[in-house]
Amino acid sequence: MKLKRLRITVATADEDKKRFIYEGYEIPKHQFSGKDIIVLKLDNGYNIGIRKRKDVKIDIIGEKDISISEYKNTTREIKKRAGISILNCGGTIGSRIEYLTGAVFPYVTAQELIRQFPEIKGITNIKTENVFSVLSEDITPKHWSVIAEKVYEHIKDGAKGIVVTHGTDTMHYTSAALSFMLRKLPIPVIITGAQRSSDRGSSDAKMNLLCSLIAANSDIAEVAVCMHASINDDKCYVHRGTKVRKMHTSRRNAFKSININPIAEIMYKNLSFKKLSNYNQKGTYSVKDMRFDNRINDNVALVYYYPGFKPEMINNLSEYDGVVIAGTGLGHVSTNPFNDKYSKSILDNIKMLIDSGIPVVMSSQTIFGRINFNVYTTGRMLKEIGVIGNFCDWTPETAYVKLCWVLGHEKDYDKIRKEMEMNLVGEITDRIVLIDR
Amino acid sequence: MKLKRLRITVATADEDKKRFIYEGYEIPKHQFSGKDIIVLKLDNGYNIGIRKRKDVKIDIIGEKDISISEYKNTTREIKKRAGISILNCGGTIGSRIEYLTGAVFPYVTAQELIRQFPEIKGITNIKTENVFSVLSEDITPKHWSVIAEKVYEHIKDGAKGIVVTHGTDTMHYTSAALSFMLRKLPIPVIITGAQRSSDRGSSDAKMNLLCSLIAANSDIAEVAVCMHASINDDKCYVHRGTKVRKMHTSRRNAFKSININPIAEIMYKNLSFKKLSNYNQKGTYSVKDMRFDNRINDNVALVYYYPGFKPEMINNLSEYDGVVIAGTGLGHVSTNPFNDKYSKSILDNIKMLIDSGIPVVMSSQTIFGRINFNVYTTGRMLKEIGVIGNFCDWTPETAYVKLCWVLGHEKDYDKIRKEMEMNLVGEITDRIVLIDR
Repeated sequence: MKLKRLRITVATADEDKKRFIYEGYEIPKHQFSGKDIIVLKLDNGYNIGIRKRKDVKIDIIGEKDISISEYKNTTREIKKRAGISILNCGGTIGSRIEYLTGAVFPYVTAQELIRQFPEIKGITNIKTENVFSVLSEDITPKHWSVIAEKVYEHIKDGAKGIVVTHGTDTMHYTSAALSFMLRKLPIPVIITGAQRSSDRGSSDAKMNLLCSLIAANSDIAEVAVCMHASINDDKCYVHRGTKVRKMHTSRRNAFKSININPIAEIMYKNLSFKKLSNYNQKGTYSVKDMRFDNRINDNVALVYYYPGFKPEMINNLSEYDGVVIAGTGLGHVSTNPFNDKYSKSILDNIKMLIDSGIPVVMSSQTIFGRINFNVYTTGRMLKEIGVIGNFCDWTPETAYVKLCWVLGHEKDYDKIRKEMEMNLVGEITDRIVLIDR
Repeated sequence: MKLKRLRITVATADEDKKRFIYEGYEIPKHQFSGKDIIVLKLDNGYNIGIRKRKDVKIDIIGEKDISISEYKNTTREIKKRAGISILNCGGTIGSRIEYLTGAVFPYVTAQELIRQFPEIKGITNIKTENVFSVLSEDITPKHWSVIAEKVYEHIKDGAKGIVVTHGTDTMHYTSAALSFMLRKLPIPVIITGAQRSSDRGSSDAKMNLLCSLIAANSDIAEVAVCMHASINDDKCYVHRGTKVRKMHTSRRNAFKSININPIAEIMYKNLSFKKLSNYNQKGTYSVKDMRFDNRINDNVALVYYYPGFKPEMINNLSEYDGVVIAGTGLGHVSTNPFNDKYSKSILDNIKMLIDSGIPVVMSSQTIFGRINFNVYTTGRMLKEIGVIGNFCDWTPETAYVKLCWVLGHEKDYDKIRKEMEMNLVGEITDRIVLIDR
């Protein structure tokens, strides 16, 4: 495939007859882009869209054959290890700027995603499927079930590894959900995305996708997130699906393992894979061993506690089937044991929820660390009324996803509590290992 | 003051006639401890309480004069720089284990707090005042107003520095509140606490308090948090009051500056002070210049967005005077522009709140980074309906506290928006400085 190098001169309306000159390669445009739009990849890596008007002068000044790819070795590397399914679920990695409005648009198909990366396009052994094109913030628990089912189908069809492309905003919710829904996995299920769309020079789409293909070919038999590791742009980390969180609005290295180390790293330069900590390995389970359960209860609330939190906020939750609180510190909310005149305890309100059969689960807004009800009076009081989560080192997000999943197939409070506080898929780490100094 | 060294032998009821032997110095006990309780500081630093029973044998095996303090130099250092007020507002630093129940109890007076630290006790020039003894999680916006007023009184009375001791769980909410309430400060207002009570060998109470006294004597003229900096136990960081957050449930170095560097560090060994970044300096404002405004509106909600978030959750907020959302990524919630069948947009629900005059402010659950409504369709839609917070790099907590404060004295939506999005006391940093690579 040959790309034309263009010089485009745009006159402006101002008095000085200023002109803007853009040089770069013309690249295929998105189906939503207008017919009169030219998309140019500038030398700084950014794409721009220019409308052909009478004051726009276009000169062809060269040509490039993109089949001579800088990633020839990469392609060979991935070709050797075929049998991967890429399931596109939307998000920035499957998006590009729509030049008419300037907004970022999701691709419609996985094929369009692959088209962006000529070095992957030639690999016949990669299956692609478009699951849906949904913005990350529009993902719901029902989408988790749909993705899990698709992954399960591809595994039954003989996939040796799965890459799920997904928006980053709620990627860690989805990775936790797939971890609970797809147990005793025989192969890697790697979720990836991009913090910057592939139109931007600083896009992390290509690096994340290539590293994820390597992770999907590794001996990891877990659900994991593979994303940019550092501001050095030199590697990706592979994070356990239940222990990862988006920790920055915009940085490419936004994803961090919480309370554990990443499980592996992949160097971008040579796509080498290095194990960093223990994980479930391929070969332990076969496809037949696999346990698939994508039942979910999406009638669960996650509430954030803060100074001034009103007891009515808890009372309003009586229609939910379960509640997760992001409390303060070790897992606290106001209990007002010393009858302070300004403070309002919400202990009785929580107790009313629990007494009516609604499980209440504690997590901490500190993000890092472990819930501990045994240190302070407040914790003891919460434990006594039946709040779930003592000694659990989960994020609010993983606690929420787990409660949605547990409530998908369990109604008995004691069994719910037992299942919630038991480590199922690495979401609760051993207390001894992580004891504080 | 002399302490007796005791060896206490406790027989057990088991068949092997096992005995437990404890050696350590007997220390003064808390007023709530029972009459028959001996409190022993063990050589590992932990305190234990032992009930005198007939099977408990007590031998005096030595004596120590604690006036020969290892902190002689420290005392001299602090004495030189007198005029500090310590205002006790409860929390772990003002607590110790109540040996009858094993629970951690707050001290009743600031004097009791000081009694714990003989190296400070002798300094006549330190004023102490007990504001209240409230657990961190029981603090409300009304408490912020009370603390701010006390600080203001002490400044008017000539204090050269203020140390506020406070529970750590919600310390960063209080530090943000004091930052807005006490503007153009002539002196340092340093908030500190402890992650471990002073009964524990690993307590950070002494280090945090001593370093805070140094910070309170420095040229910082801001509200700041001074807490343990690292797991090396060698220093404390001073964090800007509006840019700090508790980021771990239990570690002593739980407090982190968010989106900026700490403003100073204090080495524990020699109590040396080092400026790390710019801050408002003493001498810029006099006591007369100071602006004190502790009016607060505590009818504000902070809600956390998550996949499966129901529109009704927003509708339930119509009785509030303001709402802060902790959205995903750059500041997103479900807007469902592509009409996905599972997804439920909450855009109309937010618009209804705004149209009825309730300001809605965006923050991000990623904690780190900056809100940006200009990148994605979702952000543009939120901006269009009037959601406040574009380009603000605040934490959900600081956004919440600021809205409480702004609504304390402003009712006009446009003025509220303008004041919210304007940097008042360092809560929004310059966009250029922190631009992402």
